[in-house]
Formats: sequence, structure tokens, C-alpha cells
Amino acid sequence: MTYPTLAVRLPDWLEKFLSRAERTYPTVDERMRLVIELSRLNVENGTGGPFGAAIFDMRDRSLLAAGVNLVVSGNCSILHAEIVAMILAQAKAGTFDLGAEGVGPCELVASAEPCAMCLGALQWSGIRRLACGARGEDVERIGFDEGEKPPAWVDALERRGISVVRDVCRDEAVRSLRDYRECEGMIYSPRR
Amino acid sequence: MTYPTLAVRLPDWLEKFLSRAERTYPTVDERMRLVIELSRLNVENGTGGPFGAAIFDMRDRSLLAAGVNLVVSGNCSILHAEIVAMILAQAKAGTFDLGAEGVGPCELVASAEPCAMCLGALQWSGIRRLACGARGEDVERIGFDEGEKPPAWVDALERRGISVVRDVCRDEAVRSLRDYRECEGMIYSPRR
Repeated sequence: MTYPTLAVRLPDWLEKFLSRAERTYPTVDERMRLVIELSRLNVENGTGGPFGAAIFDMRDRSLLAAGVNLVVSGNCSILHAEIVAMILAQAKAGTFDLGAEGVGPCELVASAEPCAMCLGALQWSGIRRLACGARGEDVERIGFDEGEKPPAWVDALERRGISVVRDVCRDEAVRSLRDYRECEGMIYSPRR
Repeated sequence: MTYPTLAVRLPDWLEKFLSRAERTYPTVDERMRLVIELSRLNVENGTGGPFGAAIFDMRDRSLLAAGVNLVVSGNCSILHAEIVAMILAQAKAGTFDLGAEGVGPCELVASAEPCAMCLGALQWSGIRRLACGARGEDVERIGFDEGEKPPAWVDALERRGISVVRDVCRDEAVRSLRDYRECEGMIYSPRR
């Protein structure tokens, strides 16, 4: 029996886009607008659903790594935007801990609140701060599922030393989700 | 800026081990003993923590894919045993949905109860059944962290059509964890 492998990498359009992107993002609104733009471009380029994420090094507000949802194009239900960004940020930093000495502190900026899996992953990543655009209910309103999260997940993250900022450019983030629904994007969802 | 990639693949020892392993595992105890063995071999081979997982095609009880914890050796906090197994099973099946027509139904067998991230990931994988060895409290007793899970996570999975069997060969699974602690294995843990 031979075993397959999976190469996690950004789509070509995104590598090109990032090579032209600004190098620093001083405000959280600028950082959020980048990931909302990625959520739109991911749909336009046909590489996945309307979700973007990025991880910033908060020492100089520079982009450490970006991610988009690659579930369908990558044949992999794990490849949510946040997970892709975490995998690539850790590969770049050469450590499984983005809170290790010499790295960060790091912020995860996500165009929508993380699902149950991404929330769990955040706790193991070493990231110190989360900024979200659309709310979980905005995501569910267009037909996606957030999964079973702990009821007070924001408090739970804060208790673990991860600060949370919600509703950053929420209207713009919601618009990207709505535009996706209106063009009848494929909503991959697990059977219940 | 160049972007890194991550190749998710099994360690060489595990590919070799599996090429010699039996092709079918009729009982859940046999399936569990395989993953407990993987949890031990992962430590012995120095590729990661004492956790093993595998996904079986329940039509013929054959092994679809296996995984071990590769967090430290892979520089990636996402690479828990269950996630590695899900990624490779989906790569092998050529779909992000292990419940799709022509695939499975599939069972995830894990040497220990899944952490918050892996529980979330399970909901998106299309897997229909979970069998666990050690309990979450057994894992925490040796110093690992399970993360913030929904309080009634078993019921939540069952409501989503994923059946759960706990305590399969629990004593043997716990022994593997204890042996790891006694040889003072590195416990990678996120800062709180």
C-alpha cells in the first residue's frame, strides 16, 4: 500500500498578490481589509470559499503568512483559511510555537470568527491575539456551519492569554459573504 | 517574500511498518491495538508524542490511512495524529468528504480522546464513527492539554450523526501514555 502526501501551499494567484502587497499593516482595519480582500479573491479565482486569514508579527505589523480556504481545491476538510495561515506561518518561523522566543507576538486576523476546529487550533499555535470580521451567525446565515464551540469561547481564549477583538470591519466582511451567497457559491458542508 | 510549503507525510518508519501490517482489522480492539502500537512507536522512533490514530473503511474494516503526532518533528502545531490521518485519508480518497458516495463509511480510531481542535476537525471530515482509547483526563494527567471542548461533546457528535465509542482498550492506551511520561518525553504545550 502506498501512502499519499499533501503539500500545503498557497495558490499561485495568492503568491503573486502577496508579492505586490504592502509590507506592513499598522492598523487592525488595514490588516482586516487585506484578509477580506483575500476572501473575495479566493472565490473569484475559484480556489475555495469566501474566507481569508493572515498572521502578523506584532513587533512591526508585518505579514508573516496568509491563508485562504482551500477545502475543495485541496481535497482536504482541514484546510480552512486560518489553518492554512497557521501551517505556513509555523513553516516560515521554523517552529510549532508562534509564541516562542524570537517569534512574534503574533496576531491571527480572520475574515470571519473561527469554527470549532480553528478555535481549537488557535490554542495550540502560540498566537497571542485574534481579530475577527464577520460573526459566527453571519457565517451561518449564508449556510456554513461553525460546529460545536464552547459557549463562552471568547472568555476561554482570554483565560489562556489570547486576546480577542470582534467585529473589525464587520460590514465589509459580511458583504463578502453575501456576495458569495448571491453568486451561488458551492457550500461544502458535512452531512448532519 | 517567498512562501513556504508544508508536505504532510508519514515518517519513513511508519510507511515501512504499515507495508507489513495486516490488511484488515475486524474488531474495534484490533483497530485500537494498532493505533496504541503507533503511539509507542512514534515515541521510540523520536518522531513525536505518544498519540496514534487511524481511519478505517468500515465496509471491509481495512485501513484507509494512519497518523501519528508530528507536531515537534514537523514544526507544526496542527499535526496531531488524528489530523494527519484525516489529511492522508482524504488525499487517498481524493475528496474532502470521507462520507461521500463511494467512500466509507469511515471510522476514526484514536489512542486518546480528541482535543478541541481534532473534535472540530472530525465534524468536517465526513467520518461517521469515533473510537477512543484513553480518556481526556488520562491525557491531562500526564501533562498534555485537551483545550476548551464543548461540555457535552459526545452528545454533540452523536447529534451530528457521528457515533462515539469510548474506553476501547483504555488500560493499554493509558499504559502507553504513562510509559511516555516515565521516560520524560518532551511535552510541547502552548503557554497559558
